[in-house]
Amino acid sequence: MRSVLAIGAHPDDVELGCGATLLAHAAAGDTVTMLVMTGGESGPGDPEHVTGRRLEQEAAARALGARLVWGGMYDCMLTADAATVALIEGVLEETAADVVYVHAPDDSHQDHRAIASAAQGAARRLSRVLHYQSPSTLSFTPTVYVDVTAHLTGKLHALGAHASQVELSAMVEPDAVVASARHWGAQARIGYAEAFAPTRMVLDLAPAPRRRAEDLPAVHRLVPTARLAG
Amino acid sequence: MRSVLAIGAHPDDVELGCGATLLAHAAAGDTVTMLVMTGGESGPGDPEHVTGRRLEQEAAARALGARLVWGGMYDCMLTADAATVALIEGVLEETAADVVYVHAPDDSHQDHRAIASAAQGAARRLSRVLHYQSPSTLSFTPTVYVDVTAHLTGKLHALGAHASQVELSAMVEPDAVVASARHWGAQARIGYAEAFAPTRMVLDLAPAPRRRAEDLPAVHRLVPTARLAG
Amino acid sequence: MRSVLAIGAHPDDVELGCGATLLAHAAAGDTVTMLVMTGGESGPGDPEHVTGRRLEQEAAARALGARLVWGGMYDCMLTADAATVALIEGVLEETAADVVYVHAPDDSHQDHRAIASAAQGAARRLSRVLHYQSPSTLSFTPTVYVDVTAHLTGKLHALGAHASQVELSAMVEPDAVVASARHWGAQARIGYAEAFAPTRMVLDLAPAPRRRAEDLPAVHRLVPTARLAG
Amino acid sequence: MRSVLAIGAHPDDVELGCGATLLAHAAAGDTVTMLVMTGGESGPGDPEHVTGRRLEQEAAARALGARLVWGGMYDCMLTADAATVALIEGVLEETAADVVYVHAPDDSHQDHRAIASAAQGAARRLSRVLHYQSPSTLSFTPTVYVDVTAHLTGKLHALGAHASQVELSAMVEPDAVVASARHWGAQARIGYAEAFAPTRMVLDLAPAPRRRAEDLPAVHRLVPTARLAG
Amino acid sequence: MRSVLAIGAHPDDVELGCGATLLAHAAAGDTVTMLVMTGGESGPGDPEHVTGRRLEQEAAARALGARLVWGGMYDCMLTADAATVALIEGVLEETAADVVYVHAPDDSHQDHRAIASAAQGAARRLSRVLHYQSPSTLSFTPTVYVDVTAHLTGKLHALGAHASQVELSAMVEPDAVVASARHWGAQARIGYAEAFAPTRMVLDLAPAPRRRAEDLPAVHRLVPTARLAG
Amino acid sequence: MRSVLAIGAHPDDVELGCGATLLAHAAAGDTVTMLVMTGGESGPGDPEHVTGRRLEQEAAARALGARLVWGGMYDCMLTADAATVALIEGVLEETAADVVYVHAPDDSHQDHRAIASAAQGAARRLSRVLHYQSPSTLSFTPTVYVDVTAHLTGKLHALGAHASQVELSAMVEPDAVVASARHWGAQARIGYAEAFAPTRMVLDLAPAPRRRAEDLPAVHRLVPTARLAG
Repeated sequence: MRSVLAIGAHPDDVELGCGATLLAHAAAGDTVTMLVMTGGESGPGDPEHVTGRRLEQEAAARALGARLVWGGMYDCMLTADAATVALIEGVLEETAADVVYVHAPDDSHQDHRAIASAAQGAARRLSRVLHYQSPSTLSFTPTVYVDVTAHLTGKLHALGAHASQVELSAMVEPDAVVASARHWGAQARIGYAEAFAPTRMVLDLAPAPRRRAEDLPAVHRLVPTARLAG
Repeated sequence: MRSVLAIGAHPDDVELGCGATLLAHAAAGDTVTMLVMTGGESGPGDPEHVTGRRLEQEAAARALGARLVWGGMYDCMLTADAATVALIEGVLEETAADVVYVHAPDDSHQDHRAIASAAQGAARRLSRVLHYQSPSTLSFTPTVYVDVTAHLTGKLHALGAHASQVELSAMVEPDAVVASARHWGAQARIGYAEAFAPTRMVLDLAPAPRRRAEDLPAVHRLVPTARLAG
Repeated sequence: MRSVLAIGAHPDDVELGCGATLLAHAAAGDTVTMLVMTGGESGPGDPEHVTGRRLEQEAAARALGARLVWGGMYDCMLTADAATVALIEGVLEETAADVVYVHAPDDSHQDHRAIASAAQGAARRLSRVLHYQSPSTLSFTPTVYVDVTAHLTGKLHALGAHASQVELSAMVEPDAVVASARHWGAQARIGYAEAFAPTRMVLDLAPAPRRRAEDLPAVHRLVPTARLAG
Repeated sequence: MRSVLAIGAHPDDVELGCGATLLAHAAAGDTVTMLVMTGGESGPGDPEHVTGRRLEQEAAARALGARLVWGGMYDCMLTADAATVALIEGVLEETAADVVYVHAPDDSHQDHRAIASAAQGAARRLSRVLHYQSPSTLSFTPTVYVDVTAHLTGKLHALGAHASQVELSAMVEPDAVVASARHWGAQARIGYAEAFAPTRMVLDLAPAPRRRAEDLPAVHRLVPTARLAG
Repeated sequence: MRSVLAIGAHPDDVELGCGATLLAHAAAGDTVTMLVMTGGESGPGDPEHVTGRRLEQEAAARALGARLVWGGMYDCMLTADAATVALIEGVLEETAADVVYVHAPDDSHQDHRAIASAAQGAARRLSRVLHYQSPSTLSFTPTVYVDVTAHLTGKLHALGAHASQVELSAMVEPDAVVASARHWGAQARIGYAEAFAPTRMVLDLAPAPRRRAEDLPAVHRLVPTARLAG
Repeated sequence: MRSVLAIGAHPDDVELGCGATLLAHAAAGDTVTMLVMTGGESGPGDPEHVTGRRLEQEAAARALGARLVWGGMYDCMLTADAATVALIEGVLEETAADVVYVHAPDDSHQDHRAIASAAQGAARRLSRVLHYQSPSTLSFTPTVYVDVTAHLTGKLHALGAHASQVELSAMVEPDAVVASARHWGAQARIGYAEAFAPTRMVLDLAPAPRRRAEDLPAVHRLVPTARLAG
């Protein structure tokens, strides 16, 4: 059983990027946590929608069977600085995450770029860091896919919880969500897929615990005879 | 339980590129087949070594717990033509392979380039095609790794079966094999790793059968109303 | 008024890759020629389908308002050799083409790779060479798009003319065609699009004739004073 | 008739990057606006040159037939934050721009990087965003070119208006400007060219208005039957 | 005799990235300067280790035969702003550096990214800027190597001076340092190597002074006849 | 003193790609050999020009101070097969070459692609393999440059020896040669440059012999304790 952490800059980013994959994780018995860095204060709609967006995000998390953690930062003001890295490190530690999903680094939204970089920093010792595509992502060359044929309806339901966004934003278009899933599915030679570009992804071929270099059997460890000395 | 097919142009290519990963597959209960396209007739050593190389390859396959299939083609004369594609298609069908490991496409050896391309063609409908690195590989940007800490000794044993190569070739250097495994292990934040660049890799989040688009529940299938007509 | 040449290895390749763009060219008053290199002899279906595929291709060309030229080569045996380059050069000359559409170079089908390379060679002096995506294309990073919202229905009709392919091939899936057009449309911030990766693309900002370097006004020509001499 | 917006961090950046292309746009009847983000306060030369640089920029804009808009920001202090994005959004809206020219993202000058990113954010819904090369640009892989053979003299005149820069800066070398135009011209198989790397570029094959997905004829719209619901 | 400047964000970054190459430069008679931007205040260990890290860095510099310059900035707070660029420009000028070694730009640590960018800006007129790999570097495609077979022991000694880091940090693993040197050595077809990705690297084929364009013999200078004029 | 081998598919390819660099090598006291694979039988001009092209090539080699070796293959029929690799291996061995210059792999001419690949294969154990740009080269991202300010006139003289080509071919334009040298010179922050994309390039920091891994001092050799055994 894995612990999965999905990170997004704003409400609905995680659902758009990897919502169906999170449902697949939940179906496989994994624990899923969503970290949403901001409340979406600068998104479309009038001020009442700000509170609304938080309620929508909570409904969407429930629809995905995920625990929701708020980052408490401000929309359009995110940077990849030490504070942001530390915040993500805290959630990584608390969830003992095995795998992280986060924005792709090359994105036209400054918040998305910042969170992608900060997550790469916070997860620097983690073996599974996967980047998803947002509507504002620029270059994106996926090599890894998840079959979401069984979970696309669920993803659309979770996205539907973000009613204010879907109605108001020009960037969230449900038919484009379905089309991209089918496009990537054709690339992956399956039905519908979500696509990912890994920073690094260690495959699970068998349910074996990972070991660090110092735990290796001595017989094939590298032995530089030169001792380190000041 | 998966069916794994690893393809190499010459004896010892598969062991060098993904031998420890094959051991990990075997340990996980998967069926492993090796397809070696040529008998290594143009490799280093005198003519008696040609027969020797085949015996060595058979010993190495046993060491990996893999079934060995010979392609029966000639060393240094491989091309990515229809016959080579068809030969690989046949083995893919016979083994009902779920995942293919093969040379990376950008390689300074013409046989390696040819087999990489031919395998991409033969496996065009397969969802898991992963490229390994050879000593002659040129550009190589891995995104996927397998933890081989528990299987590195076994890989060295399998390579050791290719005694004529290890002694005679300047390209197979056992210490470089260990060093690269540790180098990629550090990149993957584990101990020792083999590294892969996927053409595409669908992850197994749960033991679910893949479905094609036409098997989808009708409720979210894409329906272009315009009927196709001649 | 431009002269457009679209090149494909097999019947239906051109329609799949850029059929709607060709309709947009025709609607803009451009002359459109399709060069189909082979009759698709190795495609799916029984022998009678071979003749059928040629009739289908002719119907599809009519649906696109394009003139059809057959390359007369054999399926699965294409190479980027001098003969193939010369054949394409001949059609380029005969049509006085301003722009060429052809397969992307990184493709898992050997014929597609061969035709992409041969067309790059034949069109080496042409200022507009654009690569389209096929279902078998591997890496593909488009930077140029054509809005095909008004022509997608026409593309589906032209594809429908290839009834034997659509029924029999696992690679031609009509819903995936629509999905990819919508996916690229979202990338291009329009409705539906076909996507292209140019070798080079000189934009037409105004209806001005192109001039070679030697026709430049002398006042800003580069003058290397050192005269060339044997 | 298009509305063109060219954005540069400092005086003379736009002229160097795409001055001749702007002249081609003007010659084609398009409306051209230049947005210069800073007054070049940290550029070479003594304080009097600061005012001088602004006068030079105004002369250069006149030479290009372009309207000049000042961003009012400070040299060497630009960041891709929400304020910079909003400023560019304002000019995009006011000019109803169809196409944006801006610095390439990979540049050794922090201001150039910042403006490239901010413009990608501000123009996130625009279908034509093209990046030009500056002397400080690092990696740059153009795919789109404009034939500037007829406008190179005009570009040199506009650059000549920046006399203080040309005399003092080691980065603005007129012969290198001509050489690069000829170099790119050879790549584009024409005389002289300016080169562009698009974020995305929708071609104008015919004078048709763009339409969004929701304006499509219903017959081929994607219909995910699953309704969105909270 | 060259003047070499190696820049790192924190103590031990330079030694890890290019320590053996610096020893090779020193052995060739070159002058070597290390610029360490911060004192490593946020690194692992208790407060007393901060002072300790500075003493360790000074010992390591002595071990490399390099002069040490401290940047005086704060750990985890580096940005590629004008002040950082100016600081590096000052050291470049004071050392009259011919070649700069610095972090690779794509790195998961925000300080490493910042210093890579700031150094590219500060060294914008320099002909030799080479990026080294750190344990936190992400994508890295080296094309240039230095044979460090004779200097690897010396590098390990210099790293050994950073005892507090080697003991406490999970990112500095001596066996991985040796393994990567051997891995890159195999890529470079030598024994052990350090690998570099250049922003640009002008080779020294002969001990000739570089000349700027304006010093060229007139006979082959580019002469754009059009004079620059306001 | 180095031994330099420059390889080109046709007469004048080497001069265009790296002629000035070869002059710089000669000026530094290096031995320079040119391997021209074909006699240019399919180039522009009538049959008498074929003999003429060989005489021109010999004159050009003399102008560069280089020894000329003919490959004896046929124009437009080159492939990267075992025979071509063996031919280049023979010349590499005979000249004991330290560095190889050859076409870039991504080129629209099939002969250029073939020779680039064959040279990568033949030079698989060599530490210095550099690719030059031809007029038909497609993607090209140089990282290494040679200052040819002192040798550009010499390059133009050598090119001038190929009078039949310069007059007849649309691809060899002397002003574009000068312009590209100035363009790359500006990128390299020098006057005029030839640009190279290395497969790998080991720098000469000091006149030290290279050593293989097995010659290393035992104190820091990698010791995988697991013995290789069949």
